[in-house]
Amino acid sequence: MDGHLALLDQTRLPAEVVQLVCRDVQSVWQAIRRLCVRGAPAIGIAAAYGVCLGVQTARDADLAAFQTRVDKICDYLATSRQTAVNLFWALDRMRAVAHQAAGCSAREWAARLLAEAQAIHQEDRQMCAEIGRHGADLLAELPAGAGILTHCNAGALATGGDGTALSILFELARRGRRPHVWVDETRPLLQGARLTTWELLQRGIEITLICDSMAAHVMRQGNVQAVVTGADRIAANGDVANKIGTYGVATLAKAHGIAFYVAAPTSTLDIALATGDQIPIEQRAAEEITHGFGRATAPAEVAVYNPAFDVTPAELIAGIVTEKGVVQPVTPATIAAWAARPPA
Amino acid sequence: MDGHLALLDQTRLPAEVVQLVCRDVQSVWQAIRRLCVRGAPAIGIAAAYGVCLGVQTARDADLAAFQTRVDKICDYLATSRQTAVNLFWALDRMRAVAHQAAGCSAREWAARLLAEAQAIHQEDRQMCAEIGRHGADLLAELPAGAGILTHCNAGALATGGDGTALSILFELARRGRRPHVWVDETRPLLQGARLTTWELLQRGIEITLICDSMAAHVMRQGNVQAVVTGADRIAANGDVANKIGTYGVATLAKAHGIAFYVAAPTSTLDIALATGDQIPIEQRAAEEITHGFGRATAPAEVAVYNPAFDVTPAELIAGIVTEKGVVQPVTPATIAAWAARPPA
Repeated sequence: MDGHLALLDQTRLPAEVVQLVCRDVQSVWQAIRRLCVRGAPAIGIAAAYGVCLGVQTARDADLAAFQTRVDKICDYLATSRQTAVNLFWALDRMRAVAHQAAGCSAREWAARLLAEAQAIHQEDRQMCAEIGRHGADLLAELPAGAGILTHCNAGALATGGDGTALSILFELARRGRRPHVWVDETRPLLQGARLTTWELLQRGIEITLICDSMAAHVMRQGNVQAVVTGADRIAANGDVANKIGTYGVATLAKAHGIAFYVAAPTSTLDIALATGDQIPIEQRAAEEITHGFGRATAPAEVAVYNPAFDVTPAELIAGIVTEKGVVQPVTPATIAAWAARPPA
Repeated sequence: MDGHLALLDQTRLPAEVVQLVCRDVQSVWQAIRRLCVRGAPAIGIAAAYGVCLGVQTARDADLAAFQTRVDKICDYLATSRQTAVNLFWALDRMRAVAHQAAGCSAREWAARLLAEAQAIHQEDRQMCAEIGRHGADLLAELPAGAGILTHCNAGALATGGDGTALSILFELARRGRRPHVWVDETRPLLQGARLTTWELLQRGIEITLICDSMAAHVMRQGNVQAVVTGADRIAANGDVANKIGTYGVATLAKAHGIAFYVAAPTSTLDIALATGDQIPIEQRAAEEITHGFGRATAPAEVAVYNPAFDVTPAELIAGIVTEKGVVQPVTPATIAAWAARPPA
């Protein structure tokens, strides 16, 4: 077997379209850590395929040895990033498949893992489409040409399909609603400027790129009718961890009477955490802020705080658009009902 | 006469400390436009000296010709930037000196202009010190080590003295209050990351650099007890134009119950404008956002909105710290009283 995982290296976009080929677990771990692949659902999918790469050269004598190997691979990949729960959710599914492999032949073990990774991938593609549909229904009352602001990248680059937040925008465009998208550049790594603009332009959607600090001014001018972002983890009470800056955007939206929506698949829900306060927030290197563009833009000795995510409390969220429909209002009860609901 | 104006080229900081020598009006105009010199009071001072450079080779036959020359120079320098009112205020003072020069000898004309520019410079230095004193009195009740957030650069680099907002922080430090300063990097041109950090580190003040999008998260964590920024123009009702992002910070401060203060000298007041809506907002080049660091960080064809300033409405401002004391509350009546008050 000579399997490999080919990823679009997102750190190089939009200047270069470069494929990154991963042939082992370590390179998948690196690709996730370095944000070559990013976005909560996409991380989960990449990790699932990473498990397959990890077992493809294995010649385990018995099932127990194989299962131990899968557990170790999953434990290792789980250390690549800490906030997005989809990573752990996908790895748990891979782990479960390995532990349900009794009765199979040794050669089937790896095939089952690959089938599970492909299922995770395919399901995500389907969930993106459903999210797009439900979200476009939700926003159907906005006037044609309405301004919609998004933060970071929750598009095709972040998922196995058309994205979460961006899937809604794509669907609105498909329905002829001509959304005008205000794209936050999203410091420090500029996922908005580099990735979201790239995706939206490819689909012919009208956009304006702004610095994160301009969102309040644009809202005050009356140019934003709704905000839609993705999510990296949703707690049982509806608090949402997402890219740093999301909480600020949600607070500003509230101050301007603008509805703030989150779009995410069920795999983003972490019902085990009562509130967002319990979500671990990844801290990243100071250099992302002080040397983000290849040269020093701050004094060398400066102290830096660089959380990759923040938590938006449920009360600021008008609705969570999922593949099963819209969770609205966002409360512990509606979140529990969402978790329990079968797929639409 | 071989006068010149030596400026620290702020576009090169903090990586390089480079002096820019201006020998004519055009180079002063360029220095202001390119932000080699920036900050509302500093722009006014630079422009005043620019007028002196413009007349130093003049051999005008009569006073009327000299006055026409000064008017033309002032008109030209006034086109360098449009939002900060201190520029026009300083040029008006230079113009007035030229028009009050009847009875002087021809060789005195230029000397009077130089004396006025030096007076503007010296007065600003004094105003900075007074603002520092009044602001530190105002913040005296904060606990030692309190977190104070600032946006952009309102320090020595922006003024003729110790700054406006930063003068208060320097004075608090001098009084042993050990402020911990949260420095917004201030996109797109990173005046916070490049300039404010540089100034504060030189004074041994404890700081943490953050991206603008992190301010809300830091506030929610309880780490900010007050916000202080500068101002580029203050309308008669107390609305404040300042660096883009200030309005967002003020809105976030209100949402978190944090007092938001503005520090500015009287020269920043534009009593002729009833409200902030009438303040012209400079739009700058898209490249500041898409190519801010020497390489493309967005697709070439993307539309960009790049206002250099925004307007913070008076109701979000807990007080304006001036050289005459603190304007508090901020209302048309208190602003009018401030304008009328003689220097303390």
